[in-house]
Amino acid sequence: MSTNVYDPEREAELKAEAEKYIPPGYDPDLYKIRHSAAHIMAQAVMERFPGARIAIGPPVKDGFYYDFELPRSPTEEDLAWIEQRMKEIIKGKHRFHVREVSVEEARELFKDQPYKLELIEGLARGQYDEYGNKLPEDQRPKITVYQHDTFIDLCRGPHVEHTGQIKANAVKVMRVAGAYWRGDEKNPMLTRIYGTAWRNRVELEQYLKRLEEAKKRDHRRLGKDLAIFAIEPQMVGPGLVLWQPNGAVIRDQLERFLKEEQIRRGYQPVYTPHIAKVELFKTSGHYPYYKDSMFPPMVVDENEEYLLKPMNCPFHIMIYKQHLRSYRDLPIRFAEFGTVYRFEQSGEVSGMTRVRGFTQDDAHLFCRPDQLEDEFKSVVELTLKVFRSLGLTDFRARVGVRDPESDKYVGSDEVWEQATQAILNALNDYDFDYTVEEGEAAFYGPKLDFVVNDVLGREWQLGTVQVDYNLPQRFDLTYIGEDNQPHRPVMIHRAPFGSMERFVGILIEHLNGAFPPWLAPVQVVVIPIADRHIEYARSVAARLFQQDLRVKVDDSANRMNAKIRAAQMQKIPYMLIVGDKEVEEETVAVRLRSGEDLGAMPVGEFEAKVRQLVAQRTMDLW
Amino acid sequence: MSTNVYDPEREAELKAEAEKYIPPGYDPDLYKIRHSAAHIMAQAVMERFPGARIAIGPPVKDGFYYDFELPRSPTEEDLAWIEQRMKEIIKGKHRFHVREVSVEEARELFKDQPYKLELIEGLARGQYDEYGNKLPEDQRPKITVYQHDTFIDLCRGPHVEHTGQIKANAVKVMRVAGAYWRGDEKNPMLTRIYGTAWRNRVELEQYLKRLEEAKKRDHRRLGKDLAIFAIEPQMVGPGLVLWQPNGAVIRDQLERFLKEEQIRRGYQPVYTPHIAKVELFKTSGHYPYYKDSMFPPMVVDENEEYLLKPMNCPFHIMIYKQHLRSYRDLPIRFAEFGTVYRFEQSGEVSGMTRVRGFTQDDAHLFCRPDQLEDEFKSVVELTLKVFRSLGLTDFRARVGVRDPESDKYVGSDEVWEQATQAILNALNDYDFDYTVEEGEAAFYGPKLDFVVNDVLGREWQLGTVQVDYNLPQRFDLTYIGEDNQPHRPVMIHRAPFGSMERFVGILIEHLNGAFPPWLAPVQVVVIPIADRHIEYARSVAARLFQQDLRVKVDDSANRMNAKIRAAQMQKIPYMLIVGDKEVEEETVAVRLRSGEDLGAMPVGEFEAKVRQLVAQRTMDLW
Repeated sequence: MSTNVYDPEREAELKAEAEKYIPPGYDPDLYKIRHSAAHIMAQAVMERFPGARIAIGPPVKDGFYYDFELPRSPTEEDLAWIEQRMKEIIKGKHRFHVREVSVEEARELFKDQPYKLELIEGLARGQYDEYGNKLPEDQRPKITVYQHDTFIDLCRGPHVEHTGQIKANAVKVMRVAGAYWRGDEKNPMLTRIYGTAWRNRVELEQYLKRLEEAKKRDHRRLGKDLAIFAIEPQMVGPGLVLWQPNGAVIRDQLERFLKEEQIRRGYQPVYTPHIAKVELFKTSGHYPYYKDSMFPPMVVDENEEYLLKPMNCPFHIMIYKQHLRSYRDLPIRFAEFGTVYRFEQSGEVSGMTRVRGFTQDDAHLFCRPDQLEDEFKSVVELTLKVFRSLGLTDFRARVGVRDPESDKYVGSDEVWEQATQAILNALNDYDFDYTVEEGEAAFYGPKLDFVVNDVLGREWQLGTVQVDYNLPQRFDLTYIGEDNQPHRPVMIHRAPFGSMERFVGILIEHLNGAFPPWLAPVQVVVIPIADRHIEYARSVAARLFQQDLRVKVDDSANRMNAKIRAAQMQKIPYMLIVGDKEVEEETVAVRLRSGEDLGAMPVGEFEAKVRQLVAQRTMDLW
Repeated sequence: MSTNVYDPEREAELKAEAEKYIPPGYDPDLYKIRHSAAHIMAQAVMERFPGARIAIGPPVKDGFYYDFELPRSPTEEDLAWIEQRMKEIIKGKHRFHVREVSVEEARELFKDQPYKLELIEGLARGQYDEYGNKLPEDQRPKITVYQHDTFIDLCRGPHVEHTGQIKANAVKVMRVAGAYWRGDEKNPMLTRIYGTAWRNRVELEQYLKRLEEAKKRDHRRLGKDLAIFAIEPQMVGPGLVLWQPNGAVIRDQLERFLKEEQIRRGYQPVYTPHIAKVELFKTSGHYPYYKDSMFPPMVVDENEEYLLKPMNCPFHIMIYKQHLRSYRDLPIRFAEFGTVYRFEQSGEVSGMTRVRGFTQDDAHLFCRPDQLEDEFKSVVELTLKVFRSLGLTDFRARVGVRDPESDKYVGSDEVWEQATQAILNALNDYDFDYTVEEGEAAFYGPKLDFVVNDVLGREWQLGTVQVDYNLPQRFDLTYIGEDNQPHRPVMIHRAPFGSMERFVGILIEHLNGAFPPWLAPVQVVVIPIADRHIEYARSVAARLFQQDLRVKVDDSANRMNAKIRAAQMQKIPYMLIVGDKEVEEETVAVRLRSGEDLGAMPVGEFEAKVRQLVAQRTMDLW
């Protein structure tokens, strides 16, 4: 193919324009490297499987994929060949060329590629307005093709300048999966090949190490091994979490911690049902705006229909409405660990982090407009305190605003503007990074989400704060002002943990299952060396139990080293080994989960130290 | 009418036989007095409204009623006339006669009474077996009529010997209500007249006083006045409780109390979802045995159907099944404050005591057969401790066993026998009264309910303990015994409070809203005498708040006496009045809710005393 079809000046323009397709928050260099690596992989696949059909190949988090229709499933050998061939293509330093093509030319170029033709027909329809008139040129979606070496693809870019800008030793073909064309199970199943690409070899190696570490820390595996939770998809349902005792202890401790902080800040507890009549959700707007995320209704008859609650807010609003509220009563802060249910697609649910039922550490603050900024900041500070207490010190914030194209929101433009401004104003006082992202708002208002990095550098969306002028209007909430007139309060929705299920799932991975003393399901195991030490071991355990420590005795028939290993596997913070000397001297030999051996000490000394660490809720072991 | 139709000897036999119709737990004298008073009232009504039609007239708790079809609604004047006439009839000392009649004679006697005729037709059908053959005489249901003075009624008795055995001044006509014939809304609406009758005037007066007191203590009224809970039948649903902050504080404290007691006894917390697939309830037998008490299903498609949980047990069983359990692991005790939903008829729900959603202080104990008795007793002792801590010292127990006629139970006769014996054996060790009642079992096993008398002498069913051999079988639960073979554990279901909603509702009435210091939603109100004392009042409140006391300042513009009255209305245990003297001397003048004035004392002294009372969870105010 001759290169003279590409006009360098026009290419520069198109490439500059393509930069806008880099999603916010994605490193632009990595985005272009991965997008280009996807094309290079597709070229290699076409060479390995002549006549293969190509679908789409975008960058994703930490890598990229490309979907193909192949004559057979690729083997390990195929993948090795493809990776090797990619490295050769990279070393060829082929330029990425771009040009705009007409619908007709696109059809001709991809006449043997039915998936591409389907995409082209979509683009073709976009050339016309709703009356069938061809749009003016500047309003038509551009159709561009990118080419490097022998491979040409329908693509909007952007890409690197030439394949040599990718490091051959920073690229890897990862794995194969099945994926329906356009994600629709009515369409053919294609072969998706995942790859990854980084700036250099060191980054790639770090990533592969992180992956391996993440697999070991996977909360689904640890959650089972440590008896923290269980899922029974057949008998109970996918995404519905059964908290085993070890998990329930962790959750209880987290809830107590937050409850204490909340009482200090003037929150009041409430409890509300898990179901309500559809009328409540019609008034709130959840029905119909949130309908698709809800479980099917429970229909008694045409006049009586119940829904599982997807959010707690309408219930807290009903409690607000029980009394006439005065400006002197505000702010009112209702808090509830409220379990809500949302009907996620069953393919989407996994472990504790993507579920259908979860308990929000929810609260709703009803305040006067002049109190909004202070209340908002106080919520942000509580959220940050919670994160820091659990060693989650690396985070950024994301302001979720409306998708201007969508009609899935309630309320006027004016109140949306007001609420968004309130969030942005308050954020000016903080020095953490934040991005503004369209389409990430709740259906009733904009929100501030905290995105936390765990020890592996992975991002998790946790706490959320939302400002809401809409629900107070829909429920006609008022308070009587100093002027004796009714006024409209503003609401703040907030949940520092976000969801107890998700938070504990993330904590498991962040801490690798090794919870700090105050959260550890079992804090102390007493290990008698021989049977004659069991009685003393039990008396030590009884004493610690009296002091509200969670303790057990390993009186199994195993040998001491096996008992220590078992305790280590269960990530129990403290092992107290007792033998003849300890019995005689009424001491315990203290071994930490970290492997450190603190030697023998009086039981009282150990007990006092651990009680202090637990009371302080520190991450420290000693 | 001549009396020679009555044969004194036969009468004595029939009357002795009729004694069996007195329900267990109902005082036999009162039962006969009230049953007879119902007939006397019917006679008076027939005289007031000639041609009235009579339906049925049984004794009920604390009185009796009779249903009539009347030409018009009775006025206050009618009721006064009827009551007066009843007193005259009573004074006539008319004997109650009884005789057996044939179906034909019964039809003739009541030919003008269509409701009686309907009852007679039912009795007539009972004379024949399923093949239409007349049953032998001793197997036919007897048809008896009772007569006193001019009034004759189709009735199985028993009655007093003569109307003079009733005291004229211990009888009262109470009120009129509507009631469908046979309780079916497709039938005609009748006029139900309620009356009451007691042994003597004093008992009647005590009862009327209790009624009045009960009305004042009605938890629906107090629950609203004290902002404890709210119901929104239109927007949320009948029987679905919204716990306002004051109620939530009480519930939190009760839950903490029980949690501490449970941890001491080796219970482990768990949390489980509020819904599950119908498969879970098919395995447990709730579906179909408990189907009528459940909310309608949430149907995703024919393979995916969810139900709101009416009980927590199947979920705890699923957690048990997560691991291989050894005989050394047992007993295992899973505890959860689990909210369950049952679809009561909307006419049946009321306040917090008869609801559709409620939170059980639930636990399930899985034990070896040799551990059952100890575990059962330990549960009974915990339950008694809970009652006594809350001043509920007057109670009896009720053993609920199967209704042998019904098919709404799962499991073999053998395991029912085994479980019932286990309960009766354990009860031998206690000295409280108990009755055995048929038809009061759970569908999977017999149960022990505690029936508590409140300060007004009213009975409430609270805590429950159930022994269950059935669900372990249905779910194929096992543990590995010392013999290395699988064995079947026994389950105990238990809930000392029963339901948090119901328990708090009853506590409100029992305590007349005056909760002890540890439960009071607001424990202390600081009352500044004049504006210049507000600052000091706030500093006192801040100090107490720091010490985890629930405190507020009444800084309203009201005068001191009005503030005291308001605190009294809210039943706040402690009022701290601060004026010039208190500010100067850094003291507080302490006034108790009881009206007692303790005079001025240093803040520290008050604080130490109240913290101690709260920590002890005592009912004492000082």
